[in-house]
Amino acid sequence: MNLLNDESLLSHDRAHAQADAPLYERLAAHYRRVIASGTLAPGDRMPSVRALMSRHKVSLSTAIQVFRRLEDGGWLQARPRAGYFVRRPAASKLATVAEPDIPVLPEPARYVGLHERISRVIERAQAFPDALNLGGATAGAALYPTERLQSLASRILRHKPTLLTEVGEDGGAAELRQAIAKRALTADVTVAPDDVLITSGGVEAVNLALRAVAQPGDTIAVESPAFFGLLQILESLGLRALEIPTSPTTGLSLEALDIALTACPEIKAVVAVPNLQNPLGCVMPDTRKAELVALCARRGVALIEDEPYRELVEAAQPARPLKSWDRDGGVIHCASLNKALAPGMRLGWMSSGRWHARVRLLKFAQTRHNESLAQFVAAEFIGSGAYDRHLHRLRDKLRVQREASADAIGRYFPAGTRLNLPPGGLLLWVALPDGRSSDALFEAALPHGIRIAPGSIFSNSERFRSFIRLSCPVPFDERMDAALRQLGRLAAGIA
Amino acid sequence: MNLLNDESLLSHDRAHAQADAPLYERLAAHYRRVIASGTLAPGDRMPSVRALMSRHKVSLSTAIQVFRRLEDGGWLQARPRAGYFVRRPAASKLATVAEPDIPVLPEPARYVGLHERISRVIERAQAFPDALNLGGATAGAALYPTERLQSLASRILRHKPTLLTEVGEDGGAAELRQAIAKRALTADVTVAPDDVLITSGGVEAVNLALRAVAQPGDTIAVESPAFFGLLQILESLGLRALEIPTSPTTGLSLEALDIALTACPEIKAVVAVPNLQNPLGCVMPDTRKAELVALCARRGVALIEDEPYRELVEAAQPARPLKSWDRDGGVIHCASLNKALAPGMRLGWMSSGRWHARVRLLKFAQTRHNESLAQFVAAEFIGSGAYDRHLHRLRDKLRVQREASADAIGRYFPAGTRLNLPPGGLLLWVALPDGRSSDALFEAALPHGIRIAPGSIFSNSERFRSFIRLSCPVPFDERMDAALRQLGRLAAGIA
Ligand SMILES: Cc1ncc(COP(=O)(O)O)c(C=O)c1O
Ligand SMILES: Cc1ncc(COP(=O)(O)O)c(C=O)c1O
Repeated sequence: MNLLNDESLLSHDRAHAQADAPLYERLAAHYRRVIASGTLAPGDRMPSVRALMSRHKVSLSTAIQVFRRLEDGGWLQARPRAGYFVRRPAASKLATVAEPDIPVLPEPARYVGLHERISRVIERAQAFPDALNLGGATAGAALYPTERLQSLASRILRHKPTLLTEVGEDGGAAELRQAIAKRALTADVTVAPDDVLITSGGVEAVNLALRAVAQPGDTIAVESPAFFGLLQILESLGLRALEIPTSPTTGLSLEALDIALTACPEIKAVVAVPNLQNPLGCVMPDTRKAELVALCARRGVALIEDEPYRELVEAAQPARPLKSWDRDGGVIHCASLNKALAPGMRLGWMSSGRWHARVRLLKFAQTRHNESLAQFVAAEFIGSGAYDRHLHRLRDKLRVQREASADAIGRYFPAGTRLNLPPGGLLLWVALPDGRSSDALFEAALPHGIRIAPGSIFSNSERFRSFIRLSCPVPFDERMDAALRQLGRLAAGIA
Repeated sequence: MNLLNDESLLSHDRAHAQADAPLYERLAAHYRRVIASGTLAPGDRMPSVRALMSRHKVSLSTAIQVFRRLEDGGWLQARPRAGYFVRRPAASKLATVAEPDIPVLPEPARYVGLHERISRVIERAQAFPDALNLGGATAGAALYPTERLQSLASRILRHKPTLLTEVGEDGGAAELRQAIAKRALTADVTVAPDDVLITSGGVEAVNLALRAVAQPGDTIAVESPAFFGLLQILESLGLRALEIPTSPTTGLSLEALDIALTACPEIKAVVAVPNLQNPLGCVMPDTRKAELVALCARRGVALIEDEPYRELVEAAQPARPLKSWDRDGGVIHCASLNKALAPGMRLGWMSSGRWHARVRLLKFAQTRHNESLAQFVAAEFIGSGAYDRHLHRLRDKLRVQREASADAIGRYFPAGTRLNLPPGGLLLWVALPDGRSSDALFEAALPHGIRIAPGSIFSNSERFRSFIRLSCPVPFDERMDAALRQLGRLAAGIA
């Protein structure tokens, strides 16, 4: 889904409007549609605040919020003493990222050899500890319910001080497994608390899933580009990666996967991030999710879904995970609370279908149960209405941050830069024009105090060497603006 | 070191007396020596409280504590209206566990196939959730500094609320790595904070160590009997175990290890628990520790030391880990805070010598960094004097619990039962007489509300089928006494 062309923008806004968005948000969406469709053209004067108030029968504060929202997104420009004028966000001039070619034959599966490359990137970045980090994938602490969680933790500790000094429950605290199972229902996933296994983040869940279904030397089909952490896991487990072309709008190519499964019957599992893929930001349409589950079931291949970002998808209905189409236990669902709830608590969970017993054994042998306190805090927060209210705010803030960053990229980056604005999350996948080297940009940016993620770490191939992944972890401010302007300048100067 | 014969009891007491033990403890040790040497014989009347006060120039309360201590350990018996009489603890009648044979040729290395056996034991035990658990290896919450840790946690959270919502530090919080490195100095281990890697318990550390030095199919030399968790790790990683005979008093047989390393040059690593081995409870003498390190260095074999219980050893000086003799980075030191500090916080750490970089990569790919709050709590506690005070109390309490349990076993178990009382910790390794089946005892005890660990889960062989591991997790009370009496009765009735 490309949100920068009008059609999808409209449908996205419509979907959003159905949700219980606040009034100002729905009105802002209305005006985005009006501008996107050309009814109000760039340069036109925007109707006044008073006009909005009387036309839509809203309060002064609501009308002002509509103006703010539109200005944040780059749809309005204030001219001193003259009022607000319509503009199109600079991001809307950016072309979308090209769709991948689907080759007739898949590439050979290869052992992952990215460790050196990734280590070098991390080491170089560590030499600039004060750099603005646009290379991460986690939002700043200000976007999370810090105070609420802190007071919850203190209260829980007062009532259950032995959480710190008593051996925890195998497989995870019953309270948290219960809360997670209940919440999973809202995404059409039916899972018993006993099927939920609490893990040390999503990354441990994916590790356990792969160890359960594959042996060293086996081949795993992955998205291309893929989350570099997944490639590191494959490397550390001695597994081979077969990279499957992945669309920046609709995700893993089922056509290419079908070809690969036919050509390489030794593929043991497919790993996919169906919602807000990292780094692409795409969300698979539901029909394709269903097809993917059916395809893997037909071929007898394990399907591992990695879901750290599902709750960050903006849509009228909660985004569905692949697991919601699973009929025979062939899908291992791996989720994380580190992006949606609290990055410092390192909580993840998984539901492992027919590999449940083996995964439990592996988890027990690998790290035992998780630390207890964070589990109780998460259980109470997720079980309360506070979680949905927090997610609502988080998604709103991330959208504003994403749009403002995209707008700045549109303004500052060289002509020919491409970008798809994802329907959620904090990651932007940017194609530099004319094959500019993102490794060179990464190097050039560090001395300017800016850290980015070069495309080279997202694949065993050289395919993404002129892509960068930028994150929007904090509210867009002058520092962000200056950083993106600087990046744009540097990008222009690179061969 | 067998503490039940007089010689070692004496030297143990002497060692203890050198430490900063409280006065009553030193006096109690004195009287144990007096009784053990026969100067005061069983049945003799103990000098009165007043006599003690004037003879040793101590207060009433100190004299009373000496009597309590001796009574707890089974060295005195109160007769109503007649005073205190000397006895020998029943445990002292128990013979020690036999030393293992050292075969001329090692057994073949075998893949571990214990999963079914261990799962069955755990499943059976879970059917009796209210049973008194004497099958675990962790002390009850009452023995840990629950309140102190709780108030520390609340205070730290107030000062650093974003610990919950900010991404933690790679490799572990600098504060904790610093505190651990400093404390390691007291055990003659010189390690920089950057060499310390924080893990999810000792079990993750051992996993990472094995993954760093071995590939699936490789052979690992382990103690026999070994901690069942280690055998599960080997099984889950597809590694072969070569069991090395291990003395219940001096630990891993170096003679047998030497034979094994010669006969099987394909051995990739040795895993040993030098201090308070689980299940044996033995502590390797320092000379043998040094020899083991030298032997492995000479043979070019990695030495993984698993050290969850080191801080629980009772001795004048802190017990030394193998790592303190490491000269070439060939020792991977794996430690845990779960037994010494706080079972609910799931903290461990490791120092990986020449495998440091590879271990760091594996940890990052496997679970990232640990949850933050527990790390800060541990850092502050370990860095303060409170840790040593807590350990002192913990060791004292565990000794009382161990001795009381051993005494009860001496009273209640069938003649011919053997036992070595370990110099620390909470585990007792008991040999049932006449080859009685410990699996049968395990089964028979559950309906009576008692859970024990049968010897069969501590080896790939059938060698330990008439051993049980009993723990003394809580202060000895009537429930413990009744349970051990019942176990003794059941053991007597088993073929
Ligand atoms: C696709 C994907 N999977 C897994 C993870 C790791 O999640 P966690 O931090 O919960 O281990 C990330 C984090 O960046 C991710 O982007
Ligand atoms: C010898 C040994 N190693 C490791 C462990 C596991 O330690 P942790 O709980 O820190 O993972 C235990 C726990 O029983 C043990 O006895």
